[in-house]
Amino acid sequence: MAQFAVIGHKGRMGAAIEQALADAGETLGAGIDEGDDVGDALGGCEGVIDFSAPAALEANLAAARAASLPILVGTTGLETSHHALIDEAARTIPVLQTGNTSLGVTLMAHLVREAAQRLGPDWDIEVLEMHHRAKVDAPSGTAMLLGEAAAEARGIALGDHMESGRHGQTGARGEGTIGFAALRGGTVAGDHSVIFAGSEERLTIAHSAENRMIFARGAVRAGRWLIGKAPGRYTMGDVLAL
Amino acid sequence: MAQFAVIGHKGRMGAAIEQALADAGETLGAGIDEGDDVGDALGGCEGVIDFSAPAALEANLAAARAASLPILVGTTGLETSHHALIDEAARTIPVLQTGNTSLGVTLMAHLVREAAQRLGPDWDIEVLEMHHRAKVDAPSGTAMLLGEAAAEARGIALGDHMESGRHGQTGARGEGTIGFAALRGGTVAGDHSVIFAGSEERLTIAHSAENRMIFARGAVRAGRWLIGKAPGRYTMGDVLAL
Amino acid sequence: MAQFAVIGHKGRMGAAIEQALADAGETLGAGIDEGDDVGDALGGCEGVIDFSAPAALEANLAAARAASLPILVGTTGLETSHHALIDEAARTIPVLQTGNTSLGVTLMAHLVREAAQRLGPDWDIEVLEMHHRAKVDAPSGTAMLLGEAAAEARGIALGDHMESGRHGQTGARGEGTIGFAALRGGTVAGDHSVIFAGSEERLTIAHSAENRMIFARGAVRAGRWLIGKAPGRYTMGDVLAL
Amino acid sequence: MAQFAVIGHKGRMGAAIEQALADAGETLGAGIDEGDDVGDALGGCEGVIDFSAPAALEANLAAARAASLPILVGTTGLETSHHALIDEAARTIPVLQTGNTSLGVTLMAHLVREAAQRLGPDWDIEVLEMHHRAKVDAPSGTAMLLGEAAAEARGIALGDHMESGRHGQTGARGEGTIGFAALRGGTVAGDHSVIFAGSEERLTIAHSAENRMIFARGAVRAGRWLIGKAPGRYTMGDVLAL
Repeated sequence: MAQFAVIGHKGRMGAAIEQALADAGETLGAGIDEGDDVGDALGGCEGVIDFSAPAALEANLAAARAASLPILVGTTGLETSHHALIDEAARTIPVLQTGNTSLGVTLMAHLVREAAQRLGPDWDIEVLEMHHRAKVDAPSGTAMLLGEAAAEARGIALGDHMESGRHGQTGARGEGTIGFAALRGGTVAGDHSVIFAGSEERLTIAHSAENRMIFARGAVRAGRWLIGKAPGRYTMGDVLAL
Repeated sequence: MAQFAVIGHKGRMGAAIEQALADAGETLGAGIDEGDDVGDALGGCEGVIDFSAPAALEANLAAARAASLPILVGTTGLETSHHALIDEAARTIPVLQTGNTSLGVTLMAHLVREAAQRLGPDWDIEVLEMHHRAKVDAPSGTAMLLGEAAAEARGIALGDHMESGRHGQTGARGEGTIGFAALRGGTVAGDHSVIFAGSEERLTIAHSAENRMIFARGAVRAGRWLIGKAPGRYTMGDVLAL
Repeated sequence: MAQFAVIGHKGRMGAAIEQALADAGETLGAGIDEGDDVGDALGGCEGVIDFSAPAALEANLAAARAASLPILVGTTGLETSHHALIDEAARTIPVLQTGNTSLGVTLMAHLVREAAQRLGPDWDIEVLEMHHRAKVDAPSGTAMLLGEAAAEARGIALGDHMESGRHGQTGARGEGTIGFAALRGGTVAGDHSVIFAGSEERLTIAHSAENRMIFARGAVRAGRWLIGKAPGRYTMGDVLAL
Repeated sequence: MAQFAVIGHKGRMGAAIEQALADAGETLGAGIDEGDDVGDALGGCEGVIDFSAPAALEANLAAARAASLPILVGTTGLETSHHALIDEAARTIPVLQTGNTSLGVTLMAHLVREAAQRLGPDWDIEVLEMHHRAKVDAPSGTAMLLGEAAAEARGIALGDHMESGRHGQTGARGEGTIGFAALRGGTVAGDHSVIFAGSEERLTIAHSAENRMIFARGAVRAGRWLIGKAPGRYTMGDVLAL
């Protein structure tokens, strides 16, 4: 049984993580929100779980480093600069950043990699996601994670090959690009599909979450796993030994 | 057996329409493409089927009016100004403009109208479409047709309530909006879904075309139906008596 | 605020209905399970909600009639003989029997009727459902409800035109039949699709429930609506005024 | 350029294979149907492609062995006894038997294996397929191939763990079983899904064929690949080097 600090405690994921900690027999040592002093709150905790906002990431990482605590970063909407901050922090503490903490999506990313590697560039890759009406950014962190998996397997940089938010006179689909589309509505916890569209056939890998608890449970499992690890940057694939 | 002029004869739909005319026992009187004089080519024809480009619409309508021939307009990517031209032409000849000539999609639009009317504004409406990699615009004409059906049933103007091509920091979904997302890849002839996302439940109406022939057959059926009708603007719903 | 008796109170739907009653400001007057005397328990209640088992239906209807209370029957797996019992009870009390109490599915049945009426017999109708691994019968009550809607719209008796549980050397699909297939697994609350498969195109109407609460909320809404109605047999379409 | 004998030449796949041979620059040396003498017809051919019927398999294999020709067996509906005949033939000639010759499905089977291996037995596996209305058996050969891939990865025998054609009072889903469901209708060339249903999440791997040509092209590619191989039993995975 370990004690965790949860940053973004009053956010959409906060309550689910509190529940998942209780279910797993772990303890919520500190619930931290905007305005709180993160460093102060970490006393007595053994791990940090961060589902707050990109703007808070730098301070959160600094506090974890100061307290020598492992940190799970589940915040979405990160930019390249945020990833540089994470790499820097990973030199002194264990860090796991992921767009999705579920077992199903982690395996899905593995399958996407397998497929992208074996299907030639004449198979167009599209990533589709649907989330509830309150989500404020697109594509989702998970969609990006899946797109990165596909790009990596093809040996290309996603940033240079991304087609997202098609609207208007788009021209024909760019060869070798990876497309993204986002649906929003209702209370959908998170649906993702990666479509490989070839000549007269289509292969689709899809994941559907019935509710947010699967992400919370995965986050707690990953947070637990990080405790005692050597400094470095880890992935959900490491946690699940895929 | 009637004789038809097909404008956009060398385009993606041209060959399919030529085939469908033959299958239906009709005759291709004139195959017209960019650079041809439309007016000259209409001699001896009883109907016009236009799957060319928005830029050609004005001349095509004028030629049909000059020859007093009915015209089916299947061209996609039309703007408000094009619709004004069509309304004007419909004062003197029968005109049917549609984003989709298949029976399945025409019925689908009817079902979307039924659902949109009965489900309150707390059910978010999203329109998703997938087409082959060569398609140059988004959303598809059919997606627009379906969005229009939903908007009409809700008594709103689609133009004021459309969310298309989500990307980046979009903010939460706008209340009462109709969302659109476009996938591109492979050789997909045309898949469309309209999703009604409510609180903890989702209702989806979807259509999938295995190939382009269903559109060509529907176009020929509609072109045939238009012959001898009074001047006016018609819909596929009229043709199919839905 | 009304007081309800819930039969099958410890079953899969019981807890959800108790929650839905509380959410709606209604009261659980009696929670009735196997072995309890239903008649005794109805004292002071204004309505009965039955999600128990086919074998208990006769006694439940008798108790409701004896107490002159309206009853909502949500039990699945009913046979023709059960429907006769319901018709008989409906002569003296208001009864609403349904395989599904959600707004989405009720509207879906309406759309299925619309489509089945307009699409000729060359459009094959298939009903697909998926439910959690603990479900003990197939097809689901909702799948049957949707199949009935399609059969009714085509003017045929479902019993004579049903193809369910295909396996082995089935022969070609029977003309004019309605097919059923059942998937089971995980914790799926309930997914249903009705597929109209025509020549080279497919139209699908689908519903997905994220969890069981939508059924419980619908049951409470229907139970409330039944109070004070004239004796007779009602449908969810009546409740929702579709 | 090689010369092929096609058995089942007038069947559903025959015309597609003839077209695919022509597209690939190969030659149809002999089109063989019921009543023809297979042995006589093989003269001058370098390979045999068999899409006929289970009842003809024994004679077809014998003729290929007598002529020392490689044979691709695409016939579906095979029983254990047929597989014994194939194993026997594979001692003297190269034989490739497969329920599906497309690249997409072959890769799909690989992904199913990967997923089944990594997801524990608490993830229920279901195989869903849809085919045109004329198909006479269920589940499809491809569905069986996918189920076999999953069973193999889990170290179980499919025959002992198959739940197909659910109907009536089925009882709860058997632990560790693999379920099958078959939809039939319209002109669907072949859709397959393998669903892994876990606790509150679902992972799906799906394939959709737009038409029969992808299977014919794959059969020709595999038939070509078999020429000159050592005697033995091969798979589409060998052809595609997956």
